[in-house]
Amino acid sequence: MSLEVVSENRSFGGVQSVYKHPSSTCGCEMTFAVYTPPQAKQGPVPVLWYLSGLTCTHENAMSKGGFQQHAAKHGLAVVFPDTSPRGEGVADDQAYDLGQGAGFYVNATREPWSPHFQMYDYVVSELRAEVENLLPGERRHGITGHSMGGHGALTIALRNPELFDSVSAFAPIANPTRSDWGRKQLSAYLGEDEAAWCHHDATLLLEEKGWKDDILIDQGADDQFLDLLKPEALAAAMATRRQPGQIRLQAGYDHSYYFVSTFAGDHVAWHSERLHGSN
Amino acid sequence: MSLEVVSENRSFGGVQSVYKHPSSTCGCEMTFAVYTPPQAKQGPVPVLWYLSGLTCTHENAMSKGGFQQHAAKHGLAVVFPDTSPRGEGVADDQAYDLGQGAGFYVNATREPWSPHFQMYDYVVSELRAEVENLLPGERRHGITGHSMGGHGALTIALRNPELFDSVSAFAPIANPTRSDWGRKQLSAYLGEDEAAWCHHDATLLLEEKGWKDDILIDQGADDQFLDLLKPEALAAAMATRRQPGQIRLQAGYDHSYYFVSTFAGDHVAWHSERLHGSN
Repeated sequence: MSLEVVSENRSFGGVQSVYKHPSSTCGCEMTFAVYTPPQAKQGPVPVLWYLSGLTCTHENAMSKGGFQQHAAKHGLAVVFPDTSPRGEGVADDQAYDLGQGAGFYVNATREPWSPHFQMYDYVVSELRAEVENLLPGERRHGITGHSMGGHGALTIALRNPELFDSVSAFAPIANPTRSDWGRKQLSAYLGEDEAAWCHHDATLLLEEKGWKDDILIDQGADDQFLDLLKPEALAAAMATRRQPGQIRLQAGYDHSYYFVSTFAGDHVAWHSERLHGSN
Repeated sequence: MSLEVVSENRSFGGVQSVYKHPSSTCGCEMTFAVYTPPQAKQGPVPVLWYLSGLTCTHENAMSKGGFQQHAAKHGLAVVFPDTSPRGEGVADDQAYDLGQGAGFYVNATREPWSPHFQMYDYVVSELRAEVENLLPGERRHGITGHSMGGHGALTIALRNPELFDSVSAFAPIANPTRSDWGRKQLSAYLGEDEAAWCHHDATLLLEEKGWKDDILIDQGADDQFLDLLKPEALAAAMATRRQPGQIRLQAGYDHSYYFVSTFAGDHVAWHSERLHGSN
């Protein structure tokens, strides 16, 4: 594990760092960001993972989400992974919603994607190990994300309850097996057999497994992509399962980072309550 | 005055809007942004102007500065102007610090800049009128900015105390007549006669005129451009003049938006105290 520091900026008393490293999982160099709050000087702090949406890199939420101030207040580190493998040797597509910037947090099994598009394993295993190496000591992890990253946060948490102790999402792609944000990508990355898709659908996973604690979802009521996100499917699954948690429809808010940053403080506080609790 | 709405996003209960309009002052189409806080529904709120630095547009501080949350808390509107005229017919230079993105808030008198580079008049007169039209009713205005925009905020306020009731700055270019961030641009835009430059130097203006109230300056102590910004000149002028105010050297902070966003809350609160006071 050889990390290179790309940048370090003081922010709200902590440090916003960007790193790059050769990823054996993705077969290319990967970039990610970590915000370390001032409390980290006194000992291990919990970690909140933020997975980004289509077209984003590690940089979007780091510079526009406004998470640092809340993380500094509550004493959480925040990890911002990239959304896909990248580089000249990495497959891509002209569409904004397939290929680079659109990894969908799955392990591709189909050409031309399978050699590099292993974002599920990258986040769950390789980057997790990098982060634990970077921030040593026993600590809890929570996970959140926006849009495609909300999908990633929910599906990764639901499948790995031993790795994450809290999960929330901003406007997640909630039912990708029934959406054009999902069917296209899952068939490209995983093939036409839909049986392989259900491991990457938050609504189906919640129906099957539930989650060990409560869940927080924020969704803009004026989101221009509501038909693709399908919060109603996740809401129905939560109600049917009697899953503790809340889906908040926020009047007037769209799909942008103005929505994410408005509710970032709520989510960080919510994760902090759950991650700082006694084990 | 024909304004076109480019975008509107709900943010912290208010609205972040972007407009464009044909500018007679700059002889081109200009873009600017306004954040309107939720309190504006109940009546006129004060206005805080934020002038951006080299290479920026209206967009940088709007998306990375984190001002909206503080403006929503304190009930201030925030105006984000562009930093220069733009477009194919507008003169430019290959350097990042001259031409488009680097208007320096002066009225150019020299070719090829003079036909469009009239940012001082644009901000003080034309955009001011647009903003007063957009947000009707009696209200106070404050002004701040970062780097070249901190220079703009200080020089515009000091020369127009009847238009602005509060002024602060983040890492301003404090003494441009003595800096490579200044001498190059002032000679290009205004010519070699340095007598014309002194109207655009915060340190010289402060020595000459002072300011009617206190001033707040934040400056990162690890700013990579300290030698160009020259806060020591402004600090000396303030002390000599017995000017009320404070220059805070912030340990560990650099010149980036991570510095600006960390102290944005302090500045908005500070302007709010002064702008919400009784007339």
